[in-house]
Order: sequence, then C-alpha cells, then structure tokens
Amino acid sequence: MADAPGSRPLTLSIDAMGGDRAPGAVLDGIDIARIRHPGVRYLLHGNKGELERLLAGEAGLAAVVEIRHAPDVVGMEDKPSQAIRRRDTSMSRALESVKAGEAVGVVSAGNTGALMALSMLHLRRLDGISRPAIAALWPTVYGQSVVLDVGANVGSDARNLVDFAVMGAAFARAVFGIQKPSLGLLNIGAEEVKGNEEVKLAAQSIREANLDIAFAGFVEGDDISAGAVDVVVTDGYTGNIALKTAEGTAKLVAHYLREALKRSLFSKIGAFFAQGAFRILKVRMDPRTANGGIFLGLNGIVVKSHGGTDGLGFAAAIDLAVDMAKQNVVQRISDDIKGVAGVLSRLPTVAPEPEPAALPNVETA
Amino acid sequence: MADAPGSRPLTLSIDAMGGDRAPGAVLDGIDIARIRHPGVRYLLHGNKGELERLLAGEAGLAAVVEIRHAPDVVGMEDKPSQAIRRRDTSMSRALESVKAGEAVGVVSAGNTGALMALSMLHLRRLDGISRPAIAALWPTVYGQSVVLDVGANVGSDARNLVDFAVMGAAFARAVFGIQKPSLGLLNIGAEEVKGNEEVKLAAQSIREANLDIAFAGFVEGDDISAGAVDVVVTDGYTGNIALKTAEGTAKLVAHYLREALKRSLFSKIGAFFAQGAFRILKVRMDPRTANGGIFLGLNGIVVKSHGGTDGLGFAAAIDLAVDMAKQNVVQRISDDIKGVAGVLSRLPTVAPEPEPAALPNVETA
Repeated sequence: MADAPGSRPLTLSIDAMGGDRAPGAVLDGIDIARIRHPGVRYLLHGNKGELERLLAGEAGLAAVVEIRHAPDVVGMEDKPSQAIRRRDTSMSRALESVKAGEAVGVVSAGNTGALMALSMLHLRRLDGISRPAIAALWPTVYGQSVVLDVGANVGSDARNLVDFAVMGAAFARAVFGIQKPSLGLLNIGAEEVKGNEEVKLAAQSIREANLDIAFAGFVEGDDISAGAVDVVVTDGYTGNIALKTAEGTAKLVAHYLREALKRSLFSKIGAFFAQGAFRILKVRMDPRTANGGIFLGLNGIVVKSHGGTDGLGFAAAIDLAVDMAKQNVVQRISDDIKGVAGVLSRLPTVAPEPEPAALPNVETA
Repeated sequence: MADAPGSRPLTLSIDAMGGDRAPGAVLDGIDIARIRHPGVRYLLHGNKGELERLLAGEAGLAAVVEIRHAPDVVGMEDKPSQAIRRRDTSMSRALESVKAGEAVGVVSAGNTGALMALSMLHLRRLDGISRPAIAALWPTVYGQSVVLDVGANVGSDARNLVDFAVMGAAFARAVFGIQKPSLGLLNIGAEEVKGNEEVKLAAQSIREANLDIAFAGFVEGDDISAGAVDVVVTDGYTGNIALKTAEGTAKLVAHYLREALKRSLFSKIGAFFAQGAFRILKVRMDPRTANGGIFLGLNGIVVKSHGGTDGLGFAAAIDLAVDMAKQNVVQRISDDIKGVAGVLSRLPTVAPEPEPAALPNVETA
C-alpha cells in the first residue's frame, strides 16, 4: 500500500471470511461502500485464491482492496478461548493490521465472542478504560439511540458503567453529531430510591464527573424505543436481554399484523393497497440498516456486522467504521476518560476481567 | 355474608379505591366479571358513601358485593414504607380480609410497591418460599407465557430463582392447564458456559430438583415472544426491564405502522380496507386483555391490575384471580416447594429481604 505521509488514505481492515455468507456478502458490501466512501481503502484478510477468483473481472472493487492471505477461519461456533490461540485466522490477522498501524479499524461479520477476545488481545483496552463494551444502534420514534453494553460483559460495576457513559457520549457526539448528548442509566424505576446498588453509585459518579452531556438520570425499558435519551447505559447482561427482547417483540408484532391481514377479503384488499406502506415499515424495521455492534474502549475501531448479513448490511457496518474513523472516536474517548480520572479513582476497585469464554455471541440488530 | 360450610361461595376481596379510575372502573370490572363468574362474591373495601351512591340502581351488581368501609386510600405515588403504616386504607383492609379467611384473594389496581409491601405484611410468604415474585402474562406467537419476576425484587440469587421456577410452573399448570410446562431461565446465551453465576447455579439446582416440568435450560430475550417456553424465570431487575422494553418496542412498531400508512393515497385506501385487521391487531396487543401482575409466593392470591385500567381490564384481573382460586395455585406452590426442600437447602444462604421502599411500581401489560 502506498503510504505517503500526509496523503495516507483511510484504510479499513476487513475480515473477509467472517459470517455465514462470507466472503461473497463481504465483497458485495465493499462494492456498495466504495461508491459511498471514495478514497477509502480495504485490506482484505482471507483465503487468497478464493478472493482472487471472486475479484476477477471486478475492476472497480479490485482497485480499492488489497488481499492479505490468511489460511485459517474462526467458525461461528468456535469458543473465544480457542480462537485466541489461532493466529492465522482472517479475524486475528485483520486485527493485527490495526495494531501494526496499517488500518484504523476492523469490520467483521464473524463470531462476536471471538472478535471481542481477539480485539482485547491485539488492540488492548484504551488507557483508563476498565472494560470495553459493545454498543448497539437502537431505532426510536425520533431516529436512533445508542445502547451499551449489549453483551461484552456479563456483569458490570459502577466503574464500568461510568466508562460506558463516557464511551457512549463520545460515540453519539461523533456519529450522531450531537454536541451535548442526553444520557440515561437503564433502571427499574425513575425514582432515585430504586434499582441496584451499582447503578445508583454510577448515577452519582456521572453527576460528579461533570461530563459534557445532558444527564437524564434513570430511564426505564420503554424509554429506549421512545427515544427519551441519545445514549442508554446498562450492564452487558441486562443490555443483551433488552436488545433481544426488543427483537423478539418486533417479530411478534409483525406476525400479528400478517395474521390479521389474512383474515378477510377486505383486509386482503387493504393489504394490497397498503403494500407500499408495508414496504416502508419493513425498511424501517430492517436490521441491516442499523447493522453493527460497535466495540468501544479499545485502541482501534472494531465493528461487528450481523453474522447472517448480506452486502447491504456489511456496507452499513463499513459506514459506521468510516464515520467513527473520520470523527476520531477512539481519540475522543481517550481524552474524555482522562478528564474523569479523578471521579473514577474514588469508585470501588474494578471487577476482574471476564473470562473470554464467557463472552456472548451478540447479534445486534 | 352467608357462610354455610360446604356451600361457601368463592369470595374475592377488592381494593375499590386503588387505581387512576377507581372506584368507577373497579365497579365496571365487577359488573363484567359477575356475568362471567356466576356465584363469585366480592368484598368491596373503600369509601362507603361513595360506593353506595355508585351502586344505587345497580341491582345486579349490588347483589354480588358487600361494602366494607375504609376511610383512607393509598395514593399511586405513596412510598411503600409509608403505606404499610396506614392500616385504614382500602388496600390494607382488602388484604386483612384475606388474612382473616373471609376471601381467597385480593384484586387491586393500586400502587404496586405498596401492594407488595402490604401483601408481605398481612399475608406473609408461604413456608419455604424465600421471596415472593411478580409474574406477568406475556403474549407470544402461540398464545401466552408467564414471566417472573418482573419487579418484586431488585436482585435475585439462585435460591430465589429456583423458587420462581416452582411458582411459575405451578401457575402455568393451574391457569394454562399444562400438566408439564416447559420452563427456561433467561440468560445471555444458550450455551452452558455463559451468563451470570446465580443463573448458572439456579439451572443446576432446577435440574437436580426434578420438578414436573420440561426444563429447556437457558433461553434468550427473543425466545420470550417466540413462545419458546411456557414459563420464563429471571430476576426482578432484568424481568422488569425486559417487560418495559417489550412494551416500548410494540409502541414503536405501531408508531412506524401509523406513519407508513399516512404516506400516500394508496396506503390510506389500504388502511381503510384493512381497518378490520388493524382492529384485530389492536385487540391482540391490548394490554387490558392480559391485565394483571400476579403476586406469587404469598399465603393468598393477589392480582395487581394496571393502574390506568378500565372495567374491561379490571375484569381480566378478576378472571385471573378466579382461575387461580379454583385451581388452588397457592396450595400447589406450597406442596411443590416442600418437594424441593432438599435441593434448596444445599444452595447458598438466602439474600436479605429487600427494603419495602425499593419495590418498583410495576405496570404489567
């Protein structure tokens, strides 16, 4: 890759073999992304022979990528503890490229747990961050919010939650373009008296930290979709369950709607005329348009695309990585966390590192 | 009340003053329920003068109720710690009637936290139950499931979770009529290795307890609405957030649908023809048809109706109380928990009682 200082192109490292439909869907995604983001380059880690065959005749695509052979692949069911021992996988190599400074971030549709374990191994946590988190974009009445953690950690203490607040706010500032994002802590009641101890302690620390946010205090489960705040902070166990519960509920309502529309001739006629509306509804609810679990708190950008994604979804994940790179999200988080070091130092000791094997396979929508 | 042994009618104690639309909505509810459940009688606790005025000319309704004057009312915003000090409230008196053996259970649309605190005070926990729980009926693709705890406790240990499994299974057996209900523990991954320690310990104990259930192990958030199991067991913090997240998501999808249907003339025509279908959808998603948070683990039946309920919703809560009474749910739980005493005794010590003030105001849908 040409590496002239000052004119170095924005480069992303791609796990070309991760995901159920890789490498085809990955290449389709880059083919869409290269039109949206001219000038961005892609390091393609994966099986060289296979990738070369797929790129043959695709001159536009071939012009923006560079293939890096990786003989091994992390399977969707592989345990993170096994994945971190295999350094020849496309996923591991893609992360090593970021560590080596060849690329600013990784996009992968592979196994979430393995991707987080390898990201921690190669990229390391940012100084001052106790635990990385996985953030998800969540559709709301007003647009979208960011919710974190949705599964990088099984439990989170107050210190972790404050970190998540700093990271979520920096993300919202960079990607949503909101200078002073509103932020709430997910809890079971809006009153100060309720909720678990860690959440209450985190609320107090966030107030003391004087972050550049509009702190809304506690928010409840129904406030997420209502768009009550730009950033929702919660522990990885609760966040993961909330995310999947929301996905299940959306499917249930869609099922009810289909059943109801099949009931009578009139409703079938109605469904015919309203098909344009249903198409719009489908697009708004399409997980591909908000595709990507965003790993925050690492020395580099990592975006996890849905395992079953197609090209459109993978392109959306690239969009996110490009936005984050252009807005320097990693540097912003690093700066912001230094600013609250005083408040963080007064919190109880950080909980031990999670076992890599305990990482869930998050499929964010 | 006539109290001839052997022919004693099923009697429910009603908090006539609880809820935003009490006592009107409460009386409307009984008026609907008396047709559905002939022979059931109702002790109406509340302001005697007001209730007598409302019953004047309502001969059918007046024939099934008996008014018990209670001069005070628990407000929707009152703290549980204050509510338990006031014994002249309609809520407190309603529970005392159950304690005195005059009624088998209470239905109230009042303040959830106060109702749980007063229920614990007057009815006490069942022998062998470490913590009562609030169960919610959850609509699924196949019908409905029961999810517990949705907010009686802020945190739950393994012992509590096993209790919830016993209670949820007994409820499903009695109210859904499923002899061997399927049951899952809510977690962040289906594999044994994931999730928090208490949930893993609970899974092990449920296996050892050899309950008369089909134990599915761990289920994830999206499995609830998919109807993967009849009973979903989780801690009160997670359950409450999952429940409210689902409510918020259903509202969001409905909002998207309305927006989409307003977009063009065609979609408006479609909406006109499909209005019957949308009515059906609305009924299926109507929280009133599955109205009621069910308090389990107490010496008596307590059903919490939604605070903003109308007569139809209150009648649905009465339906639940009647079903539970006829099927002897309380006795079944008591018997089942004795059967697993051996397994429970091997679990770590029970966590301390929650502060009454910490109880959330659950509004189950």
